[in-house]
Amino acid sequence: MNVAPKEILDLNRFDATRTDGFPPELAERVARRQSSFGASSVLFYEQPIEMVRASGAYMYDVNGRRYLDVYNNVPSVGHCHPRVVEAIARQVGQLNIHTRYLNRVVEDYAEKLLATFPSPLGNLVMTCTGSESNDLAMRIARIGTGGEGFIVTEAAYHGNTALVTEISPSSLRRREPALFVEVIPAPTAHDDMSVEDSFAASVEQAIAKLRARGLALAGMIVDTIFSSDGIYADPPGFLKTAVDIVHRAGGLFIADEVQPGFGRSGGGLWGFRRHGITPDIVTMGKPMGNGFPMGGVVTRPDLLKMFCEETGYFNTFGGNPVAAAAGRAVLEVIEEEGLIEASRSVGTGFRQALEALRMAHPQIGEVRGAGLFIGLDFIDPEQVAPDSALTTHVINEMKQNGILIGAAGKFGATLKIRPPLCFSSDDAAVFVATLDTILEAR
Amino acid sequence: MNVAPKEILDLNRFDATRTDGFPPELAERVARRQSSFGASSVLFYEQPIEMVRASGAYMYDVNGRRYLDVYNNVPSVGHCHPRVVEAIARQVGQLNIHTRYLNRVVEDYAEKLLATFPSPLGNLVMTCTGSESNDLAMRIARIGTGGEGFIVTEAAYHGNTALVTEISPSSLRRREPALFVEVIPAPTAHDDMSVEDSFAASVEQAIAKLRARGLALAGMIVDTIFSSDGIYADPPGFLKTAVDIVHRAGGLFIADEVQPGFGRSGGGLWGFRRHGITPDIVTMGKPMGNGFPMGGVVTRPDLLKMFCEETGYFNTFGGNPVAAAAGRAVLEVIEEEGLIEASRSVGTGFRQALEALRMAHPQIGEVRGAGLFIGLDFIDPEQVAPDSALTTHVINEMKQNGILIGAAGKFGATLKIRPPLCFSSDDAAVFVATLDTILEAR
Repeated sequence: MNVAPKEILDLNRFDATRTDGFPPELAERVARRQSSFGASSVLFYEQPIEMVRASGAYMYDVNGRRYLDVYNNVPSVGHCHPRVVEAIARQVGQLNIHTRYLNRVVEDYAEKLLATFPSPLGNLVMTCTGSESNDLAMRIARIGTGGEGFIVTEAAYHGNTALVTEISPSSLRRREPALFVEVIPAPTAHDDMSVEDSFAASVEQAIAKLRARGLALAGMIVDTIFSSDGIYADPPGFLKTAVDIVHRAGGLFIADEVQPGFGRSGGGLWGFRRHGITPDIVTMGKPMGNGFPMGGVVTRPDLLKMFCEETGYFNTFGGNPVAAAAGRAVLEVIEEEGLIEASRSVGTGFRQALEALRMAHPQIGEVRGAGLFIGLDFIDPEQVAPDSALTTHVINEMKQNGILIGAAGKFGATLKIRPPLCFSSDDAAVFVATLDTILEAR
Repeated sequence: MNVAPKEILDLNRFDATRTDGFPPELAERVARRQSSFGASSVLFYEQPIEMVRASGAYMYDVNGRRYLDVYNNVPSVGHCHPRVVEAIARQVGQLNIHTRYLNRVVEDYAEKLLATFPSPLGNLVMTCTGSESNDLAMRIARIGTGGEGFIVTEAAYHGNTALVTEISPSSLRRREPALFVEVIPAPTAHDDMSVEDSFAASVEQAIAKLRARGLALAGMIVDTIFSSDGIYADPPGFLKTAVDIVHRAGGLFIADEVQPGFGRSGGGLWGFRRHGITPDIVTMGKPMGNGFPMGGVVTRPDLLKMFCEETGYFNTFGGNPVAAAAGRAVLEVIEEEGLIEASRSVGTGFRQALEALRMAHPQIGEVRGAGLFIGLDFIDPEQVAPDSALTTHVINEMKQNGILIGAAGKFGATLKIRPPLCFSSDDAAVFVATLDTILEAR
């Protein structure tokens, strides 16, 4: 099952060698950008967009053109939400310092956040990014278990540090996974087995393979909605058997909530809640501060203590009062604007409309998801195969029609539908109608 | 030379088991804080301070008491500098998104920052922290050289990711350095050798030891003012021979400018400038956004290209327009307020006054530094040995007198004098007079 996943960064990536026909000013802007950022520059679209402002579920380019954002999950409560903006602006003018002093903003936020987790997840470490969170989580798991090995899904992305890149098959361009990593397929039903049973069987096999290499299990880490794999949410609860197997093998279960967390799945604040499981470690990032760089690790006090006895850990920017103010505003907005319920109800209607569209267009394969996180597969109906060319076509046509959308999955043939949570049913209707027209014209 | 360094996080660390005699409200606050952050909680001082606001070189606690900040280098152009605050507040209300779209704020900042580096350092990767920057730099060096081994100084601190912790001896509580790491002493003159020659000799030996273990050199990474080692700045240029040796051995030189960068050394924007060398990779963090979480890696385009061909790298928050706006404001303030020159002139006067104090107090050993980064050793004059007990005493007495100061160095007996760059000669005079009184009373 070690099919090399399509490199997720390459999906929908601008090709800097193809600027023929660009307006001269755009060509110059792109050239200057490439000159500064070099090989690390990643721009979207065949012809990149210059963005200047954003609000709610909309972004605006330099010419004042409006785009409906159906892709960005970092500004999760809405681009430039006034409540979050005000919290950041106020706190950054007052105090912005590390956590070595007492500060009520920081302590209140930590308590408010921890109250959303089940016991025994009682301690929080604040970081700056999801990558830092997963890097720390892996070390906590290793020290807590004495094991080395990790199980991850085959197109997973967990971040960009050296260690975390090793458990992110979608980032590894040339290499086989490291010896300590065992890669399993995304959770799907097959061979007469349910999703739950087939995923559990893959985990069993992975543990056996690690053992055969002399490696004890440190843990399994999954994004609880399997974003990069192509969004696999159903049936709720399918993760439970696999997590039990991990625990019986002495490993820990790390729930990477960087993508599904903060209400996106519509089934509570955290994706793992839909599965009726309690992780040993939970990691957070992207939407935590609605764009303010912040991340976090929540775990059991005993695990954190073992880690801290082994390694001194301090994060200079982590948990600064501006991050705490942003994070608190995000939690308050989610609660006061009912965004979890909105994610569930708008998301459900959206999925139903996409299902209806599937009936009319054989190029649409499965529609999967939970809340406002939906994966829609494009297939070549004659070959019954993933169609990444059609996916790219749709992404660029959508852009022409003022809609921002991206792709995921190991074949790059799954639309990743993941708008800010303030996305409305009307917005969903616009998306569906536009997609209908594009597929009709194809 | 593998003396275990004193764990830098333990210097001046609050001991949560010692809250006897605390006012009840403080005891409760500390207990709640420990309950949320658990073993990872790090507070300063025998009795922690609750901070509520800060401005320029001053911080204010919950009772309105003012403290002169002689320690914090993140709010480098001054706590809550109005120019930086305004830039963040404006941009966060306008657009806060990843770098996959064109955006003038981001591109202008990249060009402005890159213009401060010598050729051929032409590419920038923006990250969120110094840790992420060093983690990336190490991988660029490994892929660029094909080597694995790194040389670091014995009390160095380069960050908190799994990989970077391995080259941060001051964070490793129990373990010997990893096999790929060779640890060398801080740069000092001894055995009739100059600082330059003795440091170069240590580097030669380290390369030989790595080779004896079958490891080719990837690079040497040093903080160019050797902060955690105790601040070693002089004579300017002493790094040159060592860097030449690293290059001849096929390794790269990584200048960690997280601490000395952005004008602190008073000898230009970057610490490496004082040494007349051109690094292959430069890493940045802490003061880059005056507290806004941001970091960066500047390197040669050819090295970045080799890395990006091997590993997909994308940093979600890295280079967002709010970070760019904060970073640009920091560069503008440094220029317009003449902070490099201020750092040099105030720092020089400060060092001279501390040297004068040394004549009066035999407990003061060496005074070292450049610009507003000064190390002052405390010694037991009878034993001619580092005196960490006196250092702790001074830190807590200083706090009683409204001055914030910390420690560094492998014995925890070096005052780390590192105020915001807006620190004035009058502030320095207050510090010197207070230190005089404390040592007099001892």
